[in-house]
Amino acid sequence: MSHAPDTDDEFAYIKWLRSELPPQTPRLELGPGDDAAILRVEQKERLVLKTDSVLEGQHFILKAPGVHLKEVQGPAATPEEVGRKALCRCLSDIAAMGGVPIACMAAVALPRGAGVKLREQIFLGLSKACATYGVSLAGGDTQSWNGPLMLNVSLIGEMQGERPAIRGGAAAGDVIAVTGSLGGSILGHHLRFEPRLTEGRFLVRHGVSAMIDISDGLSGDLARICEESSRRYEVGADIAAEALPVSKAARRLAKLEGQGGERALEHALHDGEDFELLFTAPAFRWQRIVREWPFDTPVRALGVVRERKKGEPAIRLLRKGEAQELALKSYVHKL
Amino acid sequence: MSHAPDTDDEFAYIKWLRSELPPQTPRLELGPGDDAAILRVEQKERLVLKTDSVLEGQHFILKAPGVHLKEVQGPAATPEEVGRKALCRCLSDIAAMGGVPIACMAAVALPRGAGVKLREQIFLGLSKACATYGVSLAGGDTQSWNGPLMLNVSLIGEMQGERPAIRGGAAAGDVIAVTGSLGGSILGHHLRFEPRLTEGRFLVRHGVSAMIDISDGLSGDLARICEESSRRYEVGADIAAEALPVSKAARRLAKLEGQGGERALEHALHDGEDFELLFTAPAFRWQRIVREWPFDTPVRALGVVRERKKGEPAIRLLRKGEAQELALKSYVHKL
Repeated sequence: MSHAPDTDDEFAYIKWLRSELPPQTPRLELGPGDDAAILRVEQKERLVLKTDSVLEGQHFILKAPGVHLKEVQGPAATPEEVGRKALCRCLSDIAAMGGVPIACMAAVALPRGAGVKLREQIFLGLSKACATYGVSLAGGDTQSWNGPLMLNVSLIGEMQGERPAIRGGAAAGDVIAVTGSLGGSILGHHLRFEPRLTEGRFLVRHGVSAMIDISDGLSGDLARICEESSRRYEVGADIAAEALPVSKAARRLAKLEGQGGERALEHALHDGEDFELLFTAPAFRWQRIVREWPFDTPVRALGVVRERKKGEPAIRLLRKGEAQELALKSYVHKL
Repeated sequence: MSHAPDTDDEFAYIKWLRSELPPQTPRLELGPGDDAAILRVEQKERLVLKTDSVLEGQHFILKAPGVHLKEVQGPAATPEEVGRKALCRCLSDIAAMGGVPIACMAAVALPRGAGVKLREQIFLGLSKACATYGVSLAGGDTQSWNGPLMLNVSLIGEMQGERPAIRGGAAAGDVIAVTGSLGGSILGHHLRFEPRLTEGRFLVRHGVSAMIDISDGLSGDLARICEESSRRYEVGADIAAEALPVSKAARRLAKLEGQGGERALEHALHDGEDFELLFTAPAFRWQRIVREWPFDTPVRALGVVRERKKGEPAIRLLRKGEAQELALKSYVHKL
């Protein structure tokens, strides 16, 4: 690894970028540096497309000499973690379709005068994450402005013969399941999560009926599956509190807040940025998924999809044999 | 056209977006609203990929009650023009490859509390421009933050059997030519330009050796063609001052600055954001291009590519039979 040139000349910077690219697929005929990039597709294919931005103050707080966060606010992010997170958020969405990522483009807006280290570390974080997940870096755009740090990643992947797992395919009787454990992501997981690419791929091959990655929180994202799947008839979900994989971070966060298990459960139900896969599958397929599951990542059934009758809540939480309506407290983007 | 819902609920906004999409290609199997979009490719293909951001204060100044610009600063932008510009900047790059655009994604960061009108108008400007240029809107990302307005567009196009026109293909003896007229873009052209898509397509079919869209200024972008084309031997460019298509806006801008034709020529040579196509072609191909040129857009030869001997300047400007070195004063991005 070399260091970025300490000059404000864009072309010197691009020259350095080109020397620090991740391993590139030979299908990328033309990478960064021309008007646009050229990527070959060898046959009939379904492409998966995604764009996502991480914004300073919204998705991360930058580590800096004057920045001191309380423990419940979680750690400040290094520029490398920002680069990694921007890519991995997109990868998590590709995973939720069951796709295979190929190449990405990155657009960064740097606070004017932030210095060479910031852009160097963001780029290296992104480039390393690209190498980790086999993603080529096809192009990008680096600019400075009188604004906070913004990093946008757009990603192109492909289905390689599988049918994409959409949100709107859940049917009454399907099992609801989730990978990993949930809640308390703010304590660090939101910067260091693993996008569930191989798991997502396994799941589309095993015929899941609907899939989403948990970015806004289990309750909200489950509600979204139910809403999108309510076509021929309305569907709702029943999930069992006892089955919820409450993460250690959720428990630790509840403790930091001076509270106990009930609060940890709420974190698991509503916290955003878990980036785990939430999916539904017919019972016979679920059995096969569990039997053949080859990953260290846990996978767990939470409940079932049901037909939602008039007046019934979208999601019910079953606790000690009782069903109560689950309020949707998960993250809502305010525009 | 309906108006966007005046609520800060992201889902209500997305529902409205879905009702105001441009005409979508049937190849877009899954558009905005799921984890990612799905686009079908029917055969072996070369895809063209581009990302670009427009940043408030850098690429536009928003029209607002308190904003008064001097005439030389050009007009403030409406939100619709911002949406259009973000798309058209990407389209101009696709044009410079000779590609055909298919679909785009848009990521917007809104100043918090900016109100519903701003996001509505940006989206409508983008959506209308998509309809104009036959681009589907595959997906996006809308967020608010404590920062200025940012709009990123990523675009996917395809070559449909043609070879992409890269920057690095110019050879000694090639004619240098340009579409349209140059300079003074700040007076309004930078918000209302036409991306030269059909012209670019015609030019790749007619075997241009190198092509770029003029975004940083003729002198700088021509230098880039020369640099990228200096592989087996160094190449430079000679252009004739008399041949330069100086735009009316360049003349008007010079006048506003209290100067004359010399200053107008400088604007044509160095101003950014013309978004015209600058290309090179072997002489016999150039003759055919001129003969068969079917567009209202003018096209004009500026000079020739030459082998650059040691100590010679990259670009020489020929005036009244004399060759002088052309200083590269065009727009340089400061990081």
